[in-house]
Amino acid sequence: MSQAREIAQRLAWVGVDWGSSNLRAWALDAHGEVLARAGSERGMLSLAPAEYEAELLRVIGNWLPATGRVPVRVCGMAGARQGWREAVYLPVPTRLDGLARGAVTPPVSDPRLEISLLPGLCQYPDADGRTFDVMRGEETQLAGLVAGEPGLAGLTCLPGTHAKWAHLEAGAVTRFSTFLTGELYGLLARQSVLKHSIGDDDLAEPGCRDAFVAAVRESQAAPGRYTARLFGLRAQDLLDDTLPTGEARGARLAARLSGLTIGLELAGMGDDLADAGPVTLIGNAALSQRYALAFEALGHESRHLDGEAAVLAGLGLAHRNLAERR
Amino acid sequence: MSQAREIAQRLAWVGVDWGSSNLRAWALDAHGEVLARAGSERGMLSLAPAEYEAELLRVIGNWLPATGRVPVRVCGMAGARQGWREAVYLPVPTRLDGLARGAVTPPVSDPRLEISLLPGLCQYPDADGRTFDVMRGEETQLAGLVAGEPGLAGLTCLPGTHAKWAHLEAGAVTRFSTFLTGELYGLLARQSVLKHSIGDDDLAEPGCRDAFVAAVRESQAAPGRYTARLFGLRAQDLLDDTLPTGEARGARLAARLSGLTIGLELAGMGDDLADAGPVTLIGNAALSQRYALAFEALGHESRHLDGEAAVLAGLGLAHRNLAERR
Repeated sequence: MSQAREIAQRLAWVGVDWGSSNLRAWALDAHGEVLARAGSERGMLSLAPAEYEAELLRVIGNWLPATGRVPVRVCGMAGARQGWREAVYLPVPTRLDGLARGAVTPPVSDPRLEISLLPGLCQYPDADGRTFDVMRGEETQLAGLVAGEPGLAGLTCLPGTHAKWAHLEAGAVTRFSTFLTGELYGLLARQSVLKHSIGDDDLAEPGCRDAFVAAVRESQAAPGRYTARLFGLRAQDLLDDTLPTGEARGARLAARLSGLTIGLELAGMGDDLADAGPVTLIGNAALSQRYALAFEALGHESRHLDGEAAVLAGLGLAHRNLAERR
Repeated sequence: MSQAREIAQRLAWVGVDWGSSNLRAWALDAHGEVLARAGSERGMLSLAPAEYEAELLRVIGNWLPATGRVPVRVCGMAGARQGWREAVYLPVPTRLDGLARGAVTPPVSDPRLEISLLPGLCQYPDADGRTFDVMRGEETQLAGLVAGEPGLAGLTCLPGTHAKWAHLEAGAVTRFSTFLTGELYGLLARQSVLKHSIGDDDLAEPGCRDAFVAAVRESQAAPGRYTARLFGLRAQDLLDDTLPTGEARGARLAARLSGLTIGLELAGMGDDLADAGPVTLIGNAALSQRYALAFEALGHESRHLDGEAAVLAGLGLAHRNLAERR
């Protein structure tokens, strides 16, 4: 039996995380076991609404059986207003096992597809210190976390281009906060005057590790000095004879820039972080390790949950909820 | 008599501020009166060392008399290592009336040109809290300030792409600090996810003014929240029904971004600013007014000195010092 045929026979549903710049899809059996993975670099920013179905079929078409309808559960920017079809944001506080109630179904031509686009979360300012904020995709990872640990209360951090921090309580997101950390790092490292100084760091290298940790602590101690320390990186590159040369120099300064920027984020969580128990980190291993090192530098404990496992658990919860409603 | 001929007859020296991305030149008579102004968009970043003389002649050539040597005093990036010829940084603390001692003379072909490239200032870390930093161009404006007020002590702020703060004492820069404020604003407004939300602000408009002032205060109160407030701008644009529409909306959000970023800089000056008397602002009128409003929002007094007047006074001081040495 061919691999494609075996997938088609065992396929129960498809999970999709469709972001701004790419999509990842998983073929799943009735027990939630991953039969196959696929993806593409065509995210919400590069697709018109009429193009989503064709792109989805291009990626997952060979998983589909010849007949029958396959549920496809989609989180992320495909459900944004500029995406495939809008799944309106749910305002916090909101329970994470209720995301499926906000799902929408875009029209499709292929009779084998039954699509559900899951909603994101939004937040409005209030007297409890909440401010305007939005998330779309991360809430499904949080739902996955809470599905596995229903009693979990505390702070969860999802590092990335737009890093998210969520307060969880009794299965609900009570408030959250997004930091521009990853995007800011990229702009500074590649498009500012610092681009002449910044290379690729490796936190397994002791010099980089020390530079990162020291920078995290500096941002924590005096966050207002952030933009002065940015220019200071450039000045250090010009003046500091004790820095190594060549690639090691760029790596050292990159570690420092990363530490300053992540440290500013941690400083921004302030008392919330200080008062929290161990923070749950959800994301890829490399970035989560970087954050774990930053937490350690400030004396906070953390634990790591794999981002793919979390989103699959969240999509699975939504799938079960939607299947029950039918 | 033609205008060019009158300039050539009265010309005593030429002042030049040659930065990274442009140059500005002034024809001056023996009393320091400006006879003419000229400039170009060819700065250090676009010129090889061998191209400086031709570019200078293109800009100021019609001021020069047929015979005789004209002193040309140049501050800014033309004296950087990657510029025309390196005028090595002078380390602080250093007296501002001694800049001319660090001037260098690049070789030229035209016998009418006698060029002096003035040095910048650098700073090394020490026990008094100094950190790595460099300036090249602003020191000449500071020299101009001190030439007019020899007893001045206190804090001077030169807003811009890389905003500089200098501590002055007895005619010397004792320490200084550079913030990436202007460059960071530009990256965020034009190249980040915020570009969809940010327009052109006008602080004469009350709504923009209020948004700017509130943002300055927010950054001052909790600088660690800076990158969260950045993403919050985007979320506010998506969610806030009370914002005006169209250009006024982009203007309001631009004022907020500007206030957050300048406010972070002011937070970074912390106790130094709190302990200072009125801050002297040196720069163009529009940007200095923006900073003056930020100071006012935090209860600090400031006064403004025009940037062109300052650089001309500083170049004039260097010209007199160099002329005496001959």
